[in-house]
Amino acid sequence: MEAKGASARLVLQQCISAKLQVKPITGSEEAVYVNISRGMVAFVCFLKQADQTTVNKMVDHITQVKLSKQDDGKLVSILDLPGDLLIVPQATLGGRLKGKRMQYHQNIDKNLGSELYAQLVEACKQTLKQKNKAVECGTYGNLQVLSIQTNGPYTHIIDVS
Amino acid sequence: MEAKGASARLVLQQCISAKLQVKPITGSEEAVYVNISRGMVAFVCFLKQADQTTVNKMVDHITQVKLSKQDDGKLVSILDLPGDLLIVPQATLGGRLKGKRMQYHQNIDKNLGSELYAQLVEACKQTLKQKNKAVECGTYGNLQVLSIQTNGPYTHIIDVS
Repeated sequence: MEAKGASARLVLQQCISAKLQVKPITGSEEAVYVNISRGMVAFVCFLKQADQTTVNKMVDHITQVKLSKQDDGKLVSILDLPGDLLIVPQATLGGRLKGKRMQYHQNIDKNLGSELYAQLVEACKQTLKQKNKAVECGTYGNLQVLSIQTNGPYTHIIDVS
Repeated sequence: MEAKGASARLVLQQCISAKLQVKPITGSEEAVYVNISRGMVAFVCFLKQADQTTVNKMVDHITQVKLSKQDDGKLVSILDLPGDLLIVPQATLGGRLKGKRMQYHQNIDKNLGSELYAQLVEACKQTLKQKNKAVECGTYGNLQVLSIQTNGPYTHIIDVS
């Protein structure tokens, strides 16, 4: 159960490297992947109350919260870390346990979710561009075929109200 | 912000394979790792109200909730999936955002958390033994050096009350 009134959820993990499929095999065409090396993987999910304000808060959380360990052990934000960002849409984060199954009644409409996702990716790119950081992202609505290597995933959940 | 009254948090992900360090390099000794192939990675965090009842609920959630996709796309529990379980202690899941930092005031005392973790691992082993499934686990209190490969992490969060 997420906190009442949440409009989005983030799961943030550190990585040494991560690789995500952005286009599956189609006909004779091979799958397409994006990669980051050291940095942060942000799993994102929009819930029913999400809007532009939610997106702005998510960008702040992703880029500014001090969740990345430098070599000296000091925690810094992804803005200050020598590292990049991979954004992974993950609608399953909106699930609520009901018996032995998860239900997704709180998840946002797919079209609206797709629009907000595009806004989030663009805003993260704009914010991180000033520091010459790469921002890669998964394709909204796809299966997210993901591999991640960590020196400690240092997993955090942020419910965005 | 997790739901009020939560006594533990779980983050569950599917994997094709996962590798976790259970002993870091010490002196001349090499690091030690455990592996699973296809199965589920369960990140676990105990909060202040956790007790034996919490552990029992977590075991039920981990082993019985239908969160693993079979080859035919049908969702089954890890008990029914041809696959294994990797349990990763992840105290950071108890974090709450305060400004630009996470705080961990709700996390359980380390010694008590370590005891409950040992109980959880043992109970999962007992439950999954009947289906000949491997249960691997990280060392409580260590940095969790983890790599994971997925065909879709299918990430779910369960707050255990």
